[in-house]
Amino acid sequence: MKRAEIIAVGTELLLGQIANTNAQFLAKHLSTLGYHHHFQTVVGDNSDRLKHALEVASSRSDLIILTGGLGPTKDDLTKEVVSEFVDETLVYHQPSLQFIEQYFIKVNRPMTENNKKQALVIDHSHVLVNKNGMAPGMVYESENKQFVLLPGPPKEMIPMVENELIPYFLIGKEMNTIVSKELKFFGIGESILETKILDILETQSNPTIAPLASEGEVMLRITASASNELEANRLIEKAEHEIRERVGQYIYGTTGDNLFIVLSKKLKELNLTISAAESLTGGLFSKRMTDIPGNSSIFTGSIVCYSNEMKQNLLNVPSELLANYGAVSEECAKSLVENMQGLAKSNISISFTGEAGPSTLENVPVGKVYIGIKIGDSEPVIKEYQFSGTREQIRLSSVKNGASLLIKLINESQDL
Amino acid sequence: MKRAEIIAVGTELLLGQIANTNAQFLAKHLSTLGYHHHFQTVVGDNSDRLKHALEVASSRSDLIILTGGLGPTKDDLTKEVVSEFVDETLVYHQPSLQFIEQYFIKVNRPMTENNKKQALVIDHSHVLVNKNGMAPGMVYESENKQFVLLPGPPKEMIPMVENELIPYFLIGKEMNTIVSKELKFFGIGESILETKILDILETQSNPTIAPLASEGEVMLRITASASNELEANRLIEKAEHEIRERVGQYIYGTTGDNLFIVLSKKLKELNLTISAAESLTGGLFSKRMTDIPGNSSIFTGSIVCYSNEMKQNLLNVPSELLANYGAVSEECAKSLVENMQGLAKSNISISFTGEAGPSTLENVPVGKVYIGIKIGDSEPVIKEYQFSGTREQIRLSSVKNGASLLIKLINESQDL
Repeated sequence: MKRAEIIAVGTELLLGQIANTNAQFLAKHLSTLGYHHHFQTVVGDNSDRLKHALEVASSRSDLIILTGGLGPTKDDLTKEVVSEFVDETLVYHQPSLQFIEQYFIKVNRPMTENNKKQALVIDHSHVLVNKNGMAPGMVYESENKQFVLLPGPPKEMIPMVENELIPYFLIGKEMNTIVSKELKFFGIGESILETKILDILETQSNPTIAPLASEGEVMLRITASASNELEANRLIEKAEHEIRERVGQYIYGTTGDNLFIVLSKKLKELNLTISAAESLTGGLFSKRMTDIPGNSSIFTGSIVCYSNEMKQNLLNVPSELLANYGAVSEECAKSLVENMQGLAKSNISISFTGEAGPSTLENVPVGKVYIGIKIGDSEPVIKEYQFSGTREQIRLSSVKNGASLLIKLINESQDL
Repeated sequence: MKRAEIIAVGTELLLGQIANTNAQFLAKHLSTLGYHHHFQTVVGDNSDRLKHALEVASSRSDLIILTGGLGPTKDDLTKEVVSEFVDETLVYHQPSLQFIEQYFIKVNRPMTENNKKQALVIDHSHVLVNKNGMAPGMVYESENKQFVLLPGPPKEMIPMVENELIPYFLIGKEMNTIVSKELKFFGIGESILETKILDILETQSNPTIAPLASEGEVMLRITASASNELEANRLIEKAEHEIRERVGQYIYGTTGDNLFIVLSKKLKELNLTISAAESLTGGLFSKRMTDIPGNSSIFTGSIVCYSNEMKQNLLNVPSELLANYGAVSEECAKSLVENMQGLAKSNISISFTGEAGPSTLENVPVGKVYIGIKIGDSEPVIKEYQFSGTREQIRLSSVKNGASLLIKLINESQDL
């Protein structure tokens, strides 16, 4: 098996301004592509030190992936250093140059000379198209080494790897089909999930099953390699079936899904509309619902009633209710969701009220949240939560639990 | 100035299961401690490869910080490899051994033999106490190199660095002080900014000035080293003054600021309230305003009027206006902002309407956005934009330009 290593170029990494999440992303793919991955290096925007890192890396690895340093400024010197290292010149890649020129015409800004630098590529390299930025990536193959240069911003690097680099690597390989499927969980922690399926995780080698936790959710990524897609899918299906038998009740979706996408699909399928009254979440539920293109048919809108005045004036929450129970209360969540549904004339409404912290206004514990849901003419369902973590985590837990509860209650109302 | 580098040990990093956030944390501290920090390495739980990483690192750095690999399992081999590298033996650290034995008595679990391994330290090293876990850290000083070994879990490593390592480094040292200051820009691209101050960037070595772009903004990080803070600040001030003379009109803030924080500070200072009517931005402006704790005194709330029905029903946009001009129009932005201010009874109101894409509903070009701002009794100001990029980028550009325009118009209204 060939050995790969990653060199991340960027002084911002050495100053601790950002974490090297690019290396994490690439590491996951290297194992699926069949590489041993033994080292990662971070080096600043300095040509001598980058050259030293290249020397060290090429003394011990076959594939060297570099991220960052492809931009327009004079700090950006990855391709300059690599081209010198492999003894090639830099040449203009005409399609990239045209793309950059077109971009500046489109946004009606003057193109400075240094932007042209982004269209330079190492001579004799295979160019990886950048659909989300200006600097193309490239693969340079010397006698026995491969050098891959990728842009630093994750929103450019990730799609380039998925859509350009991986297909390029797989051309003409025998076990050339790799298929992955993600199972998305909500309401179960990573360690409990792992404990419940430990024997499956430990005995599997093809497909591999990798648990990944992020943003308060867990997912399992099942990755199978085979000579064709049918066979790879068959391997995945078998593993998925075993997992679903154990922990299927926590699975809400698969690859590409998130709770808001699953909720939106369900609402579209049933031709239902939804609105929201948001206090502590401050627009986050609405933001997540409108992240999804085409949701104007199901998401009518929301009122962000951050102040008590807005709760009273716009959502008609009685001032006595606020005085007696406080804004963070079952009663307030109920009043908000009932009145929001009436105002928006939506089939379903959801309300969020609670204390996101870091300090508390009404003597309510930080993390206390009430979520109200009203479906059609039925009585509102109000649930109380006690979340923990930072302000950001508490707000995220709120909207995710809201979306998860909506999916559950809508399913139950359909079963009636 | 001495050179430091970080070696993170752990196969989980090479598998992409976690990001190397430890290196990010340590990087921030290394500059404050007065070290140049030029390289980071990640290596797996393998003694030959860790030895190789140590050889490379000690050939080019004075201080080598290793994280991870201090635990009880046979995968954990950092101190074994380092002790061999520096030609020392491992010895039991009695206080740590007692702490571990006590721990198992306390939780009433049998102590397995491999747990004792965690109390082994490199002979002649200074031990760093671990108050949040079992494995102590250590500092080993050879003739001209320092080796620091820290546990991998951030909840053990971070307090050990803050409470044990930094005080140890500072004892009796003539410290080189490093101070950084960030200047935040909006409304100017990275390459244009760099062109305008190229001569400053090229001639400066202390302070150094590094441009960084993220989320559609640019910042400059000015970093000065001196024998004391006063002197470092003086160097920064001089560079900042030069930069402000050239491009000061684009600077909206400094370290710790973002556009929404600056806007919120200004509103608090002037005792003004704000509300928003959000169409294409779908709650993103509200979300960013409520990311900041304590903003309930200035942000009253918003209406996310995603559908035309909400624009009519809740914000009283006349149906003829929508029929004649469309929702993405100057007229709609004006109607939204005027009515929102009336409903929320806020001093200031802002409206966003536009087409975030990827496809278009009303034959409007993707990225076309109108922002309306009304301050007090004055006539609303409506601005038209043509943004580019993904749906997410267009929405982010909208709310950032909105915040930037608000800051500008509020400043102007104060100058009257």
